[in-house]
Amino acid sequence: MSEVIASYLVHNVRNLEKKAEGIALGLTVGSWTDLPQLEQQQLKKHKGRVVSVQALGEERTKGIIQIAYPAANFSPDLPAILTTTFGKLSLDGEIKLLNLEFSAELATHFKGPKFGIEGIRKWTGVQDRPFVMSIFKGILGKDLSFLLNQLEQQARGGVDFVKDDEILFDNDLTPFEERITKGREVLEKVYSETGHRTRYAVNLTGRTFDLREKAKRATELGADMLLFNVYAYGLDTLHSLAEDREITVPIMAHPAVSGAFTPSPQYGLSNQLALGKLLRFAGADFSLFPSPYGSVALEKSETLQIVESLTKPDYVKPTLPVPSAGIHPGMVPQLIEDFGIDSVINAGGGVHGHPAGSAAGGKAFRQAVDATLSKKTLSDAAQTNEELQQALELWGDKVR
Amino acid sequence: MSEVIASYLVHNVRNLEKKAEGIALGLTVGSWTDLPQLEQQQLKKHKGRVVSVQALGEERTKGIIQIAYPAANFSPDLPAILTTTFGKLSLDGEIKLLNLEFSAELATHFKGPKFGIEGIRKWTGVQDRPFVMSIFKGILGKDLSFLLNQLEQQARGGVDFVKDDEILFDNDLTPFEERITKGREVLEKVYSETGHRTRYAVNLTGRTFDLREKAKRATELGADMLLFNVYAYGLDTLHSLAEDREITVPIMAHPAVSGAFTPSPQYGLSNQLALGKLLRFAGADFSLFPSPYGSVALEKSETLQIVESLTKPDYVKPTLPVPSAGIHPGMVPQLIEDFGIDSVINAGGGVHGHPAGSAAGGKAFRQAVDATLSKKTLSDAAQTNEELQQALELWGDKVR
Repeated sequence: MSEVIASYLVHNVRNLEKKAEGIALGLTVGSWTDLPQLEQQQLKKHKGRVVSVQALGEERTKGIIQIAYPAANFSPDLPAILTTTFGKLSLDGEIKLLNLEFSAELATHFKGPKFGIEGIRKWTGVQDRPFVMSIFKGILGKDLSFLLNQLEQQARGGVDFVKDDEILFDNDLTPFEERITKGREVLEKVYSETGHRTRYAVNLTGRTFDLREKAKRATELGADMLLFNVYAYGLDTLHSLAEDREITVPIMAHPAVSGAFTPSPQYGLSNQLALGKLLRFAGADFSLFPSPYGSVALEKSETLQIVESLTKPDYVKPTLPVPSAGIHPGMVPQLIEDFGIDSVINAGGGVHGHPAGSAAGGKAFRQAVDATLSKKTLSDAAQTNEELQQALELWGDKVR
Repeated sequence: MSEVIASYLVHNVRNLEKKAEGIALGLTVGSWTDLPQLEQQQLKKHKGRVVSVQALGEERTKGIIQIAYPAANFSPDLPAILTTTFGKLSLDGEIKLLNLEFSAELATHFKGPKFGIEGIRKWTGVQDRPFVMSIFKGILGKDLSFLLNQLEQQARGGVDFVKDDEILFDNDLTPFEERITKGREVLEKVYSETGHRTRYAVNLTGRTFDLREKAKRATELGADMLLFNVYAYGLDTLHSLAEDREITVPIMAHPAVSGAFTPSPQYGLSNQLALGKLLRFAGADFSLFPSPYGSVALEKSETLQIVESLTKPDYVKPTLPVPSAGIHPGMVPQLIEDFGIDSVINAGGGVHGHPAGSAAGGKAFRQAVDATLSKKTLSDAAQTNEELQQALELWGDKVR
């Protein structure tokens, strides 16, 4: 039967089995045992089902409950699925939504990432190494020439991707369309001079109902990629943009606002679900999430769960993991060990803070990646790589 | 200067003043004191400002911080405002967004509720008493004749509003358009027979980019009101629907999914903001929220803060508060004492569970309202009101 299975972590529950049964019925047909047999017959395909109940701890007041909701109860879209599995229930005491599993039929309504990791590799020609990305810094209040200069510096450093700051909205100083067209010119120039092509993710912002046309326009203007603050809008908006055939560029999901509903152990959604599976099913090609290293950090185990959710075999293509924040070139061996080569090494301060400037910062990252993949230590590689040498002198070669 | 002032509750902060300064700069211009004077000049209008820092408790590790963000930094829409004030910051430790205050200029971009409380009173002709609403129950898996019969029973009970169950999506048994057109026929029939007109809020569901057309179609078909699971979509979607001139009906916001980000003391958004101010500014005419009485309950103080946020003088019209869950007729005096007459008394089980059926349940509520407003005790009123008598016998006259 087509269905979604939701896993919940509950705390302070007197009777886990009763709680589970209450959810399975309360959020579907309401009641069951009192119903006449004819009505039971009619409602059978709408009835929720307790899949499992697992107590955690001896007191059995904490546990993981799995409930199956028949797809007959909802339209196959994320708002309906969220409302069914965690609408009223989100308000019902200490309950956290850990995971959602879609049956094969239900999964057909989700096309997932347009590109996926393989598609991004094919598009960029980058194989056998992690991607390197850098972020604009201090762009607010600056004009287009400042932005373009920073873009050029980053491209000259050899990074694969540059993304807008997520707090850069459409504005008079650096308008959306000009960022795309002028940015493209800069990146073409660097490509013609160096043979290296950097791709730029422009921040798609504005009113929800304008986004589709705006994204199409961006595509027409030659935007490489779109950055999107999915949780400032809604998952279904991402889903709709991603599945639109005329929006032919990869979409990079930013975790802005997700900290409103992920960090509590008692409430909200797991990071694995919010920044992993849901973004993948909604069609993000990239998912940014806090790395385990920065000041804004997640536990490493949690980041690995996100990565697993983004990349393990599933009904849709994998999404590229982008652990972010607190990253400098000396951490590249650790990053590759933790996240593998199918990931993006993403830095802001670690690029722009390089003593010889942003281009040198990008180069240091690329040098660190090459060294690590050819099994050299960074200090060995630094002997012949000046930018890496300078980065190591400034930041060291340890995870902070 | 046009700006938004955000109030945050923070925990486990070493230095509140430093934290505040870090937010004000970090989420706007990045740095300040190191900048050359010319750049300071340029960036001045983009710089965030610490409005106040208030320590809570002797250890000064907990406190309330207020930061002003210049409107020059964002487009005047809710996704940009949320991303600016609580995008990356939501991921930065124990921080909860308590409130957002819009300056007068910024507020002009938010038209608020189309009707407001006065508009709803004018539209319905209901003056000087709280409204009474009931909710469909056990509709999942049932056909249109079942739904219409339940609608008729509720209307015959004299309730002002009936709302769809929020987990009723578009489906073959009770399609959206037929719920509207056939529902209207039923309500017209009851009106012609009894002189009482009940209004029906139909659940607006489906894919985000289809909602506007669907809402317009609903309006054309004669829908009275729209129910909307705003947090399964996004605030800006509500905002866009509410400000659309062709969608001429009131919108009722349901709190589904909001429990993912409101209950934690450390993280997320305050209920006052999420179910109060933001829904009002986004244009909800009604806001449903958990009452302090049911099994899914909020603290009374918190519900009163929501109500204050929905109804106090502000740049936009007030939104009708709808405290929900756990309500039966015996609680009406308490409800009116707690929430005043500018509110909606909303019940599900308290209507349908009435020993003489749903129509009797509605009547018992209306009798309880009339009694309370004419300063009678419910037990006195029950002498001459059979339905109220039966309700009091079943549920008592105390708040559970």
